[in-house]
Amino acid sequence: MAPRNPLNIGAAARAMSNFGFFDLRLVRPYDVAWQEARSAVGAVAVLERAKVFDGLADAVADCALVVGTASLGRRELRHPVRRLEAGGRLIRKFGASEATALVFGSEKFGLSNDDLSLCHWLLRIPTREAHESMNLGQAVAVCLYELVRDPREAARAVRETRRATAAELSRIEELFVGLLKDSGYSQPATAGSTRLKVRRLLRRMDLGAADAAVWTGMLRQLAWKLGRPA
Amino acid sequence: MAPRNPLNIGAAARAMSNFGFFDLRLVRPYDVAWQEARSAVGAVAVLERAKVFDGLADAVADCALVVGTASLGRRELRHPVRRLEAGGRLIRKFGASEATALVFGSEKFGLSNDDLSLCHWLLRIPTREAHESMNLGQAVAVCLYELVRDPREAARAVRETRRATAAELSRIEELFVGLLKDSGYSQPATAGSTRLKVRRLLRRMDLGAADAAVWTGMLRQLAWKLGRPA
Repeated sequence: MAPRNPLNIGAAARAMSNFGFFDLRLVRPYDVAWQEARSAVGAVAVLERAKVFDGLADAVADCALVVGTASLGRRELRHPVRRLEAGGRLIRKFGASEATALVFGSEKFGLSNDDLSLCHWLLRIPTREAHESMNLGQAVAVCLYELVRDPREAARAVRETRRATAAELSRIEELFVGLLKDSGYSQPATAGSTRLKVRRLLRRMDLGAADAAVWTGMLRQLAWKLGRPA
Repeated sequence: MAPRNPLNIGAAARAMSNFGFFDLRLVRPYDVAWQEARSAVGAVAVLERAKVFDGLADAVADCALVVGTASLGRRELRHPVRRLEAGGRLIRKFGASEATALVFGSEKFGLSNDDLSLCHWLLRIPTREAHESMNLGQAVAVCLYELVRDPREAARAVRETRRATAAELSRIEELFVGLLKDSGYSQPATAGSTRLKVRRLLRRMDLGAADAAVWTGMLRQLAWKLGRPA
Protein backbone atom coordinates (compact mmCIF):
# COMPACT_ATOMS: atom_id res chain seq x y z
CA MET A 1 0.00 0.00 0.00
CA ALA A 2 1.54 3.23 -1.25
CA PRO A 3 5.15 2.50 -0.40
CA ARG A 4 7.34 5.62 -0.70
CA ASN A 5 10.85 4.32 -0.28
CA PRO A 6 12.47 2.30 -3.09
CA LEU A 7 14.73 0.63 -0.56
CA ASN A 8 11.67 -0.69 1.22
CA ILE A 9 10.08 -2.05 -1.94
CA GLY A 10 13.38 -3.68 -2.83
CA ALA A 11 13.83 -5.08 0.67
CA ALA A 12 10.30 -6.49 0.73
CA ALA A 13 10.90 -8.13 -2.65
CA ARG A 14 14.22 -9.56 -1.53
CA ALA A 15 12.68 -11.12 1.58
CA MET A 16 9.96 -12.61 -0.63
CA SER A 17 12.57 -14.16 -2.87
CA ASN A 18 14.55 -15.43 0.15
CA PHE A 19 11.52 -17.25 1.48
CA GLY A 20 10.00 -18.35 -1.82
CA PHE A 21 7.10 -15.93 -2.35
CA PHE A 22 6.88 -14.46 -5.84
CA ASP A 23 3.58 -12.66 -6.18
CA LEU A 24 4.19 -9.03 -5.19
CA ARG A 25 1.34 -6.60 -5.71
CA LEU A 26 1.85 -2.89 -5.21
CA VAL A 27 -0.98 -0.49 -4.60
CA ARG A 28 -0.27 3.08 -5.73
CA PRO A 29 3.52 2.97 -5.26
CA TYR A 30 5.22 6.32 -5.68
CA ASP A 31 6.44 6.23 -9.25
CA VAL A 32 9.98 7.18 -8.43
CA ALA A 33 10.18 4.59 -5.68
CA TRP A 34 8.87 1.92 -7.97
CA GLN A 35 11.24 2.69 -10.82
CA GLU A 36 14.24 2.74 -8.51
CA ALA A 37 13.29 -0.44 -6.73
CA ARG A 38 13.31 -2.51 -9.90
CA SER A 39 17.04 -2.98 -9.68
CA ALA A 40 17.20 -3.98 -6.00
CA VAL A 41 19.84 -6.61 -5.29
CA GLY A 42 18.56 -10.16 -5.24
CA ALA A 43 14.97 -9.14 -5.82
CA VAL A 44 14.81 -8.89 -9.59
CA ALA A 45 12.81 -12.09 -10.10
CA VAL A 46 10.09 -10.84 -7.78
CA LEU A 47 10.12 -7.24 -9.01
CA GLU A 48 9.87 -8.25 -12.64
CA ARG A 49 6.63 -10.10 -11.97
CA ALA A 50 5.20 -7.49 -9.60
CA LYS A 51 1.84 -5.98 -10.54
CA VAL A 52 0.66 -2.48 -9.76
CA PHE A 53 -2.94 -1.67 -8.77
CA ASP A 54 -4.95 1.46 -8.10
CA GLY A 55 -6.64 0.13 -5.01
CA LEU A 56 -6.49 -2.68 -2.50
CA ALA A 57 -9.85 -4.09 -3.59
CA ASP A 58 -8.50 -4.74 -7.09
CA ALA A 59 -5.21 -6.06 -5.79
CA VAL A 60 -6.85 -8.76 -3.66
CA ALA A 61 -9.84 -9.51 -5.90
CA ASP A 62 -8.79 -13.13 -6.48
CA CYS A 63 -7.81 -13.84 -2.86
CA ALA A 64 -9.99 -15.86 -0.51
CA LEU A 65 -8.19 -14.68 2.61
CA VAL A 66 -6.93 -11.15 3.10
CA VAL A 67 -4.83 -10.55 6.21
CA GLY A 68 -3.76 -7.06 7.22
CA THR A 69 -0.86 -6.09 9.44
CA ALA A 70 -1.30 -3.65 12.26
CA SER A 71 0.17 -2.52 15.53
CA LEU A 72 -1.79 -2.62 18.73
CA GLY A 73 -1.25 1.12 19.05
CA ARG A 74 -4.48 1.49 17.10
CA ARG A 75 -6.89 0.66 19.85
CA GLU A 76 -9.93 1.43 17.76
CA LEU A 77 -9.40 -1.65 15.61
CA ARG A 78 -12.62 -3.55 15.08
CA HIS A 79 -10.89 -6.57 13.60
CA PRO A 80 -9.77 -9.73 15.32
CA VAL A 81 -6.04 -9.30 15.88
CA ARG A 82 -3.90 -12.43 15.96
CA ARG A 83 -0.31 -12.58 17.09
CA LEU A 84 1.99 -13.71 14.31
CA GLU A 85 2.60 -17.11 15.94
CA ALA A 86 -1.11 -17.95 15.84
CA GLY A 87 -2.00 -16.07 12.68
CA GLY A 88 0.88 -17.62 10.77
CA ARG A 89 -0.40 -21.05 11.66
CA LEU A 90 -3.85 -20.21 10.31
CA ILE A 91 -2.40 -18.78 7.10
CA ARG A 92 -0.23 -21.85 6.56
CA LYS A 93 -3.30 -24.05 6.92
CA PHE A 94 -5.59 -21.92 4.80
CA GLY A 95 -2.99 -20.87 2.25
CA ALA A 96 -2.33 -24.45 1.25
CA SER A 97 -5.66 -24.55 -0.58
CA GLU A 98 -6.70 -20.93 -1.15
CA ALA A 99 -5.07 -17.76 -2.43
CA THR A 100 -4.07 -15.61 0.53
CA ALA A 101 -2.94 -11.97 0.58
CA LEU A 102 -0.79 -10.40 3.26
CA VAL A 103 -1.30 -6.63 3.26
CA PHE A 104 1.31 -4.15 4.53
CA GLY A 105 0.54 -0.47 4.93
CA SER A 106 2.68 2.44 3.80
CA GLU A 107 5.72 3.19 5.97
CA LYS A 108 4.21 6.36 7.27
CA PHE A 109 0.49 5.84 7.61
CA GLY A 110 -0.03 2.10 7.85
CA LEU A 111 -3.36 0.83 6.56
CA SER A 112 -6.37 3.15 6.33
CA ASN A 113 -9.70 2.15 7.82
CA ASP A 114 -10.93 1.64 4.29
CA ASP A 115 -8.07 -0.78 3.60
CA LEU A 116 -8.62 -2.55 6.90
CA SER A 117 -12.29 -3.11 6.08
CA LEU A 118 -11.17 -5.32 3.20
CA CYS A 119 -9.21 -7.58 5.55
CA HIS A 120 -10.62 -10.68 7.23
CA TRP A 121 -8.40 -10.22 10.23
CA LEU A 122 -5.14 -8.65 11.31
CA LEU A 123 -1.71 -9.91 12.14
CA ARG A 124 0.47 -8.42 14.86
CA ILE A 125 4.20 -9.00 15.13
CA PRO A 126 5.04 -9.39 18.84
CA THR A 127 7.25 -6.32 19.15
CA ARG A 128 7.70 -4.36 22.39
CA GLU A 129 4.82 -2.09 23.24
CA ALA A 130 7.23 0.80 23.74
CA HIS A 131 8.57 0.37 20.20
CA GLU A 132 6.07 -1.43 18.07
CA SER A 133 6.60 0.03 14.65
CA MET A 134 8.87 -2.04 12.44
CA ASN A 135 10.68 -1.14 9.28
CA LEU A 136 8.60 -2.33 6.30
CA GLY A 137 11.19 -4.66 4.78
CA GLN A 138 11.92 -6.20 8.16
CA ALA A 139 8.23 -6.70 8.94
CA VAL A 140 7.79 -8.50 5.61
CA ALA A 141 10.83 -10.69 6.33
CA VAL A 142 9.57 -11.64 9.79
CA CYS A 143 6.04 -12.49 8.60
CA LEU A 144 7.29 -14.60 5.70
CA TYR A 145 9.75 -16.41 7.93
CA GLU A 146 6.85 -17.35 10.21
CA LEU A 147 5.02 -18.74 7.18
CA VAL A 148 7.92 -20.95 6.06
CA ARG A 149 9.25 -21.96 9.46
CA ASP A 150 8.76 -25.61 10.15
CA PRO A 151 7.58 -26.35 13.70
CA ARG A 152 8.91 -29.89 13.41
CA GLU A 153 12.39 -28.47 12.86
CA ALA A 154 12.31 -26.94 16.33
CA ALA A 155 12.27 -30.39 17.87
CA ARG A 156 14.82 -31.90 15.54
CA ALA A 157 18.35 -32.29 16.80
CA VAL A 158 21.20 -31.00 14.73
CA ARG A 159 22.32 -33.40 12.02
CA GLU A 160 25.09 -34.87 14.14
CA THR A 161 28.35 -36.16 12.88
CA ARG A 162 29.24 -39.59 14.25
CA ARG A 163 30.15 -39.56 17.96
CA ALA A 164 33.43 -41.05 19.15
CA THR A 165 33.18 -44.70 20.18
CA ALA A 166 34.27 -45.97 23.60
CA ALA A 167 37.37 -47.50 21.96
CA GLU A 168 38.33 -44.15 20.45
CA LEU A 169 37.85 -42.48 23.83
CA SER A 170 39.96 -45.05 25.64
CA ARG A 171 42.79 -44.51 23.14
CA ILE A 172 42.73 -40.82 24.07
CA GLU A 173 42.47 -41.72 27.73
CA GLU A 174 45.64 -43.82 27.56
CA LEU A 175 47.61 -41.10 25.84
CA PHE A 176 46.33 -38.46 28.23
CA VAL A 177 47.03 -40.46 31.36
CA GLY A 178 50.54 -41.21 30.09
CA LEU A 179 51.21 -37.53 29.48
CA LEU A 180 49.98 -36.52 32.91
CA LYS A 181 52.24 -39.13 34.45
CA ASP A 182 55.29 -38.13 32.39
CA SER A 183 54.75 -34.46 33.12
CA GLY A 184 54.49 -35.04 36.85
CA TYR A 185 50.84 -33.96 37.06
CA SER A 186 49.79 -37.30 38.53
CA GLN A 187 51.72 -39.20 41.17
CA PRO A 188 51.63 -42.99 41.62
CA ALA A 189 49.42 -42.50 44.69
CA THR A 190 46.82 -40.51 42.73
CA ALA A 191 47.11 -42.35 39.41
CA GLY A 192 43.83 -44.18 39.88
CA SER A 193 41.78 -41.08 40.65
CA THR A 194 43.50 -39.14 37.84
CA ARG A 195 42.44 -41.81 35.35
CA LEU A 196 38.84 -41.54 36.50
CA LYS A 197 39.04 -37.76 36.30
CA VAL A 198 40.31 -37.97 32.70
CA ARG A 199 37.62 -40.49 31.79
CA ARG A 200 34.83 -38.25 33.06
CA LEU A 201 36.43 -35.22 31.44
CA LEU A 202 36.45 -36.99 28.07
CA ARG A 203 32.79 -38.00 28.38
CA ARG A 204 31.75 -34.45 29.22
CA MET A 205 33.52 -33.26 26.08
CA ASP A 206 31.04 -35.31 24.08
CA LEU A 207 33.55 -35.76 21.26
CA GLY A 208 32.65 -36.41 17.66
CA ALA A 209 34.68 -39.09 15.87
CA ALA A 210 36.53 -36.48 13.80
CA ASP A 211 37.48 -34.47 16.88
CA ALA A 212 38.59 -37.64 18.67
CA ALA A 213 41.03 -38.25 15.80
CA VAL A 214 42.33 -34.67 16.11
CA TRP A 215 42.88 -35.11 19.84
CA THR A 216 44.58 -38.45 19.33
CA GLY A 217 47.00 -36.90 16.84
CA MET A 218 47.83 -33.97 19.10
CA LEU A 219 48.35 -36.12 22.19
CA ARG A 220 50.50 -38.60 20.26
CA GLN A 221 52.76 -35.78 19.17
CA LEU A 222 53.08 -34.52 22.74
CA ALA A 223 53.83 -38.04 23.95
CA TRP A 224 56.49 -38.42 21.28
CA LYS A 225 58.03 -35.11 22.31
CA LEU A 226 58.12 -36.27 25.94
CA GLY A 227 59.95 -39.41 24.86
CA ARG A 228 57.10 -41.90 25.25
CA PRO A 229 56.57 -44.36 22.39
CA ALA A 230 53.05 -43.75 21.01
CA MET B 1 31.37 -7.71 12.05
CA ALA B 2 32.64 -4.87 9.85
CA PRO B 3 29.28 -3.55 8.66
CA ARG B 4 29.69 -1.06 5.80
CA ASN B 5 26.24 0.37 5.32
CA PRO B 6 24.82 2.81 7.89
CA LEU B 7 21.31 1.79 6.86
CA ASN B 8 22.12 -1.78 7.82
CA ILE B 9 23.52 -0.81 11.21
CA GLY B 10 20.46 1.34 11.83
CA ALA B 11 18.10 -1.40 10.66
CA ALA B 12 19.77 -4.00 12.87
CA ALA B 13 19.50 -1.63 15.84
CA ARG B 14 15.86 -0.90 15.09
CA ALA B 15 14.97 -4.59 14.98
CA MET B 16 16.79 -5.04 18.29
CA SER B 17 14.74 -2.28 19.84
CA ASN B 18 11.52 -3.72 18.36
CA PHE B 19 12.15 -7.08 19.94
CA GLY B 20 13.70 -5.87 23.19
CA PHE B 21 17.44 -6.51 22.72
CA PHE B 22 19.67 -3.62 23.74
CA ASP B 23 23.26 -4.82 23.75
CA LEU B 24 24.66 -4.08 20.30
CA ARG B 25 28.37 -4.70 19.76
CA LEU B 26 30.05 -3.63 16.57
CA VAL B 27 33.34 -5.06 15.39
CA ARG B 28 35.37 -2.70 13.19
CA PRO B 29 32.42 -0.79 11.70
CA TYR B 30 33.35 1.58 8.91
CA ASP B 31 33.63 4.91 10.65
CA VAL B 32 31.36 6.73 8.27
CA ALA B 33 28.73 4.04 8.48
CA TRP B 34 28.83 4.10 12.24
CA GLN B 35 28.55 7.88 12.53
CA GLU B 36 25.63 8.01 10.11
CA ALA B 37 23.81 5.14 11.75
CA ARG B 38 23.62 6.87 15.11
CA SER B 39 20.57 8.82 14.05
CA ALA B 40 18.61 5.90 12.59
CA VAL B 41 14.89 6.17 13.22
CA GLY B 42 13.66 4.29 16.25
CA ALA B 43 17.05 2.85 17.07
CA VAL B 44 18.60 5.62 19.14
CA ALA B 45 18.28 3.81 22.47
CA VAL B 46 20.21 0.83 21.10
CA LEU B 47 22.77 2.86 19.17
CA GLU B 48 23.59 5.08 22.12
CA ARG B 49 24.57 2.07 24.20
CA ALA B 50 26.38 0.26 21.37
CA LYS B 51 30.02 -0.63 21.95
CA VAL B 52 32.72 -0.86 19.32
CA PHE B 53 35.45 -3.52 19.37
CA ASP B 54 38.56 -4.28 17.37
CA GLY B 55 37.93 -7.99 17.12
CA LEU B 56 35.25 -10.59 17.67
CA ALA B 57 37.20 -12.26 20.51
CA ASP B 58 37.02 -9.04 22.57
CA ALA B 59 33.40 -8.41 21.66
CA VAL B 60 32.23 -11.79 22.96
CA ALA B 61 34.70 -12.16 25.84
CA ASP B 62 31.95 -12.18 28.49
CA CYS B 63 29.57 -14.48 26.59
CA ALA B 64 29.13 -18.14 27.48
CA LEU B 65 27.47 -19.02 24.16
CA VAL B 66 28.52 -17.54 20.82
CA VAL B 67 26.33 -18.39 17.85
CA GLY B 68 27.32 -17.44 14.32
CA THR B 69 25.06 -17.05 11.32
CA ALA B 70 25.89 -18.66 8.02
CA SER B 71 24.39 -19.85 4.80
CA LEU B 72 24.64 -23.42 3.66
CA GLY B 73 26.42 -22.20 0.53
CA ARG B 74 29.63 -22.58 2.50
CA ARG B 75 29.93 -26.33 2.35
CA GLU B 76 33.29 -26.40 4.05
CA LEU B 77 31.77 -25.40 7.39
CA ARG B 78 33.11 -27.52 10.21
CA HIS B 79 30.56 -26.32 12.70
CA PRO B 80 27.27 -27.88 13.64
CA VAL B 81 24.64 -25.90 11.71
CA ARG B 82 21.20 -25.61 13.25
CA ARG B 83 18.11 -24.33 11.48
CA LEU B 84 16.75 -21.22 13.15
CA GLU B 85 13.69 -23.07 14.49
CA ALA B 86 15.89 -25.51 16.43
CA GLY B 87 18.75 -23.13 17.18
CA GLY B 88 16.38 -20.45 18.46
CA ARG B 89 14.93 -22.92 20.92
CA LEU B 90 18.39 -23.74 22.27
CA ILE B 91 19.31 -20.08 22.59
CA ARG B 92 16.06 -19.28 24.41
CA LYS B 93 16.80 -22.04 26.88
CA PHE B 94 20.47 -21.24 27.32
CA GLY B 95 20.11 -17.46 27.14
CA ALA B 96 17.80 -17.41 30.13
CA SER B 97 20.75 -18.09 32.41
CA GLU B 98 23.90 -17.21 30.45
CA ALA B 99 25.08 -14.33 28.28
CA THR B 100 24.67 -15.25 24.64
CA ALA B 101 26.04 -13.52 21.54
CA LEU B 102 24.52 -13.74 18.08
CA VAL B 103 27.16 -12.91 15.46
CA PHE B 104 26.36 -11.53 12.01
CA GLY B 105 29.00 -11.16 9.32
CA SER B 106 29.60 -8.16 7.10
CA GLU B 107 27.13 -7.68 4.25
CA LYS B 108 29.70 -8.60 1.66
CA PHE B 109 31.93 -11.25 3.14
CA GLY B 110 29.98 -12.88 5.93
CA LEU B 111 32.04 -14.32 8.75
CA SER B 112 35.67 -15.27 8.22
CA ASN B 113 36.96 -18.70 9.21
CA ASP B 114 38.74 -16.97 12.08
CA ASP B 115 35.44 -15.47 13.27
CA LEU B 116 33.67 -18.79 12.84
CA SER B 117 36.23 -20.56 15.00
CA LEU B 118 35.08 -18.42 17.93
CA CYS B 119 31.48 -19.66 17.55
CA HIS B 120 30.07 -22.68 19.34
CA TRP B 121 27.72 -23.42 16.47
CA LEU B 122 25.95 -21.78 13.57
CA LEU B 123 22.43 -20.70 12.85
CA ARG B 124 20.84 -20.95 9.43
CA ILE B 125 17.71 -19.07 8.43
CA PRO B 126 15.60 -21.42 6.26
CA THR B 127 15.76 -19.39 3.06
CA ARG B 128 15.51 -20.91 -0.44
CA GLU B 129 18.67 -22.58 -1.61
CA ALA B 130 18.51 -20.62 -4.85
CA HIS B 131 18.49 -17.33 -2.93
CA GLU B 132 19.93 -17.82 0.50
CA SER B 133 21.60 -14.53 1.23
CA MET B 134 19.46 -12.16 3.25
CA ASN B 135 19.78 -8.44 3.82
CA LEU B 136 21.59 -7.88 7.13
CA GLY B 137 18.84 -5.90 8.86
CA GLN B 138 16.23 -8.43 7.78
CA ALA B 139 18.33 -11.38 8.95
CA VAL B 140 18.69 -9.73 12.36
CA ALA B 141 14.94 -9.09 12.53
CA VAL B 142 14.08 -12.69 11.64
CA CYS B 143 16.52 -14.18 14.17
CA LEU B 144 15.35 -11.93 17.00
CA TYR B 145 11.72 -12.65 16.18
CA GLU B 146 12.44 -16.35 16.53
CA LEU B 147 13.96 -15.65 19.96
CA VAL B 148 10.92 -13.73 21.24
CA ARG B 149 8.21 -15.76 19.55
CA ASP B 150 6.12 -17.65 22.03
CA PRO B 151 5.28 -21.20 20.92
CA ARG B 152 2.29 -21.22 23.25
CA GLU B 153 0.82 -18.31 21.33
CA ALA B 154 0.63 -20.46 18.20
CA ALA B 155 -1.96 -22.64 19.88
CA ARG B 156 -3.91 -19.82 21.46
CA ALA B 157 -7.12 -18.75 19.80
CA VAL B 158 -7.70 -15.10 19.09
CA ARG B 159 -8.98 -13.17 22.08
CA GLU B 160 -12.58 -13.49 20.97
CA THR B 161 -15.26 -10.96 21.52
CA ARG B 162 -18.44 -12.46 22.99
CA ARG B 163 -20.38 -14.62 20.52
CA ALA B 164 -24.05 -13.95 19.85
CA THR B 165 -26.40 -15.94 22.05
CA ALA B 166 -29.16 -18.16 20.67
CA ALA B 167 -31.74 -15.52 21.71
CA GLU B 168 -29.89 -12.84 19.74
CA LEU B 169 -29.74 -15.13 16.73
CA SER B 170 -33.44 -15.93 16.89
CA ARG B 171 -34.27 -12.21 16.97
CA ILE B 172 -32.36 -11.83 13.71
CA GLU B 173 -34.03 -14.97 12.37
CA GLU B 174 -37.50 -13.51 12.98
CA LEU B 175 -36.66 -10.26 11.26
CA PHE B 176 -35.03 -12.04 8.36
CA VAL B 177 -37.84 -14.51 7.83
CA GLY B 178 -40.37 -11.66 7.95
CA LEU B 179 -38.43 -9.71 5.30
CA LEU B 180 -38.18 -12.72 3.01
CA LYS B 181 -41.92 -13.23 3.31
CA ASP B 182 -42.78 -9.56 2.71
CA SER B 183 -40.45 -9.37 -0.27
CA GLY B 184 -41.96 -12.46 -1.88
CA TYR B 185 -38.77 -14.52 -1.58
CA SER B 186 -40.54 -17.20 0.45
CA GLN B 187 -44.01 -18.55 -0.29
CA PRO B 188 -46.35 -20.02 2.32
CA ALA B 189 -45.56 -23.47 0.95
CA THR B 190 -41.80 -23.04 1.45
CA ALA B 191 -41.93 -20.94 4.63
CA GLY B 192 -40.79 -23.80 6.82
CA SER B 193 -37.77 -24.73 4.75
CA THR B 194 -36.85 -21.08 4.32
CA ARG B 195 -36.77 -20.66 8.10
CA LEU B 196 -34.41 -23.61 8.44
CA LYS B 197 -32.25 -22.24 5.64
CA VAL B 198 -32.01 -18.87 7.45
CA ARG B 199 -31.24 -20.56 10.74
CA ARG B 200 -28.35 -22.55 9.30
CA LEU B 201 -27.11 -19.49 7.42
CA LEU B 202 -26.98 -17.51 10.66
CA ARG B 203 -25.05 -20.25 12.47
CA ARG B 204 -22.50 -20.47 9.70
CA MET B 205 -21.94 -16.72 10.01
CA ASP B 206 -20.66 -17.37 13.53
CA LEU B 207 -21.73 -13.89 14.63
CA GLY B 208 -20.16 -11.97 17.49
CA ALA B 209 -22.58 -10.20 19.82
CA ALA B 210 -21.64 -6.78 18.44
CA ASP B 211 -22.21 -7.89 14.84
CA ALA B 212 -25.55 -9.45 15.84
CA ALA B 213 -26.62 -6.03 17.09
CA VAL B 214 -25.53 -4.42 13.80
CA TRP B 215 -27.54 -6.98 11.82
CA THR B 216 -30.58 -6.51 14.03
CA GLY B 217 -30.50 -2.76 13.48
CA MET B 218 -30.17 -3.07 9.71
CA LEU B 219 -32.91 -5.66 9.38
CA ARG B 220 -35.25 -3.64 11.62
CA GLN B 221 -34.81 -0.65 9.39
CA LEU B 222 -35.57 -2.71 6.29
CA ALA B 223 -38.65 -4.18 7.98
CA TRP B 224 -39.84 -0.71 8.91
CA LYS B 225 -39.36 0.44 5.32
CA LEU B 226 -41.39 -2.54 4.08
CA GLY B 227 -44.19 -1.55 6.44
CA ARG B 228 -43.76 -4.28 9.04
CA PRO B 229 -43.82 -3.20 12.69
CA ALA B 230 -40.43 -4.16 14.19
